[in-house]
Amino acid sequence: MSQVSVRDDEVDIVIAAIEPDLTSFLEEWRAVFSRFHLIIIKDPDIKGELKIPGGFNYDTYTKADIQQIIGPSNAATFSGYSCRYFGYLLSKKKYIISIDDDCIPAKDTKGIQVDAIAQHINNLLTPATPFFFNTLYDPFCKGADFVRGYPFSLRNGVSCALSCGLWLNLADLDAPTQALKPELRNTRYVDAVLTVPARAMMPMSGINIAFDRELVGPALLPSFKLAKEGKFRWETVEDVWTGMCVKVVCDHLGYGVKTGLPYVWRKERGNAIESLKKEWEGVKLMEEVVPFFQSMKLTPAAKTAEDCVIEIAAAVKEQLGRIDPVFTRAADSMVEWVQLWKTVKTRT
Amino acid sequence: MSQVSVRDDEVDIVIAAIEPDLTSFLEEWRAVFSRFHLIIIKDPDIKGELKIPGGFNYDTYTKADIQQIIGPSNAATFSGYSCRYFGYLLSKKKYIISIDDDCIPAKDTKGIQVDAIAQHINNLLTPATPFFFNTLYDPFCKGADFVRGYPFSLRNGVSCALSCGLWLNLADLDAPTQALKPELRNTRYVDAVLTVPARAMMPMSGINIAFDRELVGPALLPSFKLAKEGKFRWETVEDVWTGMCVKVVCDHLGYGVKTGLPYVWRKERGNAIESLKKEWEGVKLMEEVVPFFQSMKLTPAAKTAEDCVIEIAAAVKEQLGRIDPVFTRAADSMVEWVQLWKTVKTRT
Repeated sequence: MSQVSVRDDEVDIVIAAIEPDLTSFLEEWRAVFSRFHLIIIKDPDIKGELKIPGGFNYDTYTKADIQQIIGPSNAATFSGYSCRYFGYLLSKKKYIISIDDDCIPAKDTKGIQVDAIAQHINNLLTPATPFFFNTLYDPFCKGADFVRGYPFSLRNGVSCALSCGLWLNLADLDAPTQALKPELRNTRYVDAVLTVPARAMMPMSGINIAFDRELVGPALLPSFKLAKEGKFRWETVEDVWTGMCVKVVCDHLGYGVKTGLPYVWRKERGNAIESLKKEWEGVKLMEEVVPFFQSMKLTPAAKTAEDCVIEIAAAVKEQLGRIDPVFTRAADSMVEWVQLWKTVKTRT
Repeated sequence: MSQVSVRDDEVDIVIAAIEPDLTSFLEEWRAVFSRFHLIIIKDPDIKGELKIPGGFNYDTYTKADIQQIIGPSNAATFSGYSCRYFGYLLSKKKYIISIDDDCIPAKDTKGIQVDAIAQHINNLLTPATPFFFNTLYDPFCKGADFVRGYPFSLRNGVSCALSCGLWLNLADLDAPTQALKPELRNTRYVDAVLTVPARAMMPMSGINIAFDRELVGPALLPSFKLAKEGKFRWETVEDVWTGMCVKVVCDHLGYGVKTGLPYVWRKERGNAIESLKKEWEGVKLMEEVVPFFQSMKLTPAAKTAEDCVIEIAAAVKEQLGRIDPVFTRAADSMVEWVQLWKTVKTRT
């Protein structure tokens, strides 16, 4: 059932360069990345020339490019991990895959290197099943099927708009958890992909994801920046916010979100104890954010991802804005993003 | 985190004897079953003496016992696979585990025999997390935790009321799927347990389950019998119906349902092509059943599992009864079951 494929030129791999030297990262991924076009965005906050080994097909964008295309006022939106969103904005491909530059290919339980790109594409090309949970996981995996009791009318599934991959070694924990359990590493390779059920929210991590840009691109947005966040994943919840936006959009428009395979291997980076000294504002804000998205209902007037984001932004401003100004800024930023998305699309 | 245990005398293992000779079944399970008390119910439709090897602690019940305790009119409810429900009714233990008699212990990916009982008990004793999906699966598994973005206020979880295990080899497919793919076997061992999110429905299989009788016992009910169903799992959807009742009850009362580990190994039994010749009424009825349970909302007046079942039965009668008389019978049977449950509880 999993004999599906795309043309190589339907895919952009977007890389956020948080460090200028991408040599070892790209060498590790050469076998799986080199067929595809890469969009490499240099974090506008870092100095030094980008180092990219030969043999890749890529475009790079720096602070100057960001400022030229969107103007200086919005450039801060694209700092740190969020610089990748500039790549999402410029891509013209149907599928976008993005993997953090501290990750290398993982190995499966048989010791075979995982082709994360092929697995993400497979997740996006095979249907998702958000309306009833299949206990044997993805029914479109080889050797799997729908279990007894699964309604035949739901077996065609729906388009999968987002594929969330996982991580071995350094798990994607928040700073307090990582600091409390400095020895904790994820060693469990769970050989499964599943559709997150409709109306259930999950914390998407931006470390290792793929999405259908034509279906939900405008919902993959950089809007929830904490004042003091740094360059480590555990200091940010921007991607978690984004994931809930996408999930609400998918639930509303009838698309699916998958999670599970592919894994990547996350190398060590940063010091959780140091990060803990900063305010862990994101952890606290999740207490408001999750119930908000869980109860979010869009109106029938929202017919595209852009429409949905605008409705979500209005609700954020109204319901969350009074709690903390970070939410008002996020709402404004979501509206700006949709405008930017439309402008860039019309221009190109 | 998974250092949890129960006393052996808090558990009943309920076995439905569909064939009278349980020798090979119980020998296969001896290492894991022999510590616990077994309740063995003989399918009232079969003939021949039960054969049970020595060294087990058990009580058996036959058609005569069923008729004596509940009277002849209801005895038909407990035929075939459903005879196990008579064991659920008589048990006084907090935890009930039930495994079909055509299943033997499975082996994990390292070739080690799985202790399905220990795994089910672990699932029931550790909290469930139905209100937000943890992408690294069960956060209470050894080596796991909550991922970044998971609200701290939800990390205590809730009581787990139902643990649904899976199957290797013969997967639990419906007769048409099994007949169309006679060679299909499930070989994928997915090393994970997850909480089915609140408000998401899933097709529970009664082959390999465990539950907390004190929390949801009355919702584990034999009510959805098809007129022409036989002795093969693929001819029935009675357990799928039951599972959705339990899920609705859990969602309402704030308990969790887990699915995944433990696996059992299902031996071959039956001929799907032969089963196909019967009407596959169950497959068709699921088209009405699933949307019904998905939209089911209980009132705040329902404070116990018994209350919940009575409310569900009323809705079944009202909303589904006009579609097919099988639903009216199911609704009546649900009400009778709750009465029976209360009678047996007061009597003992």
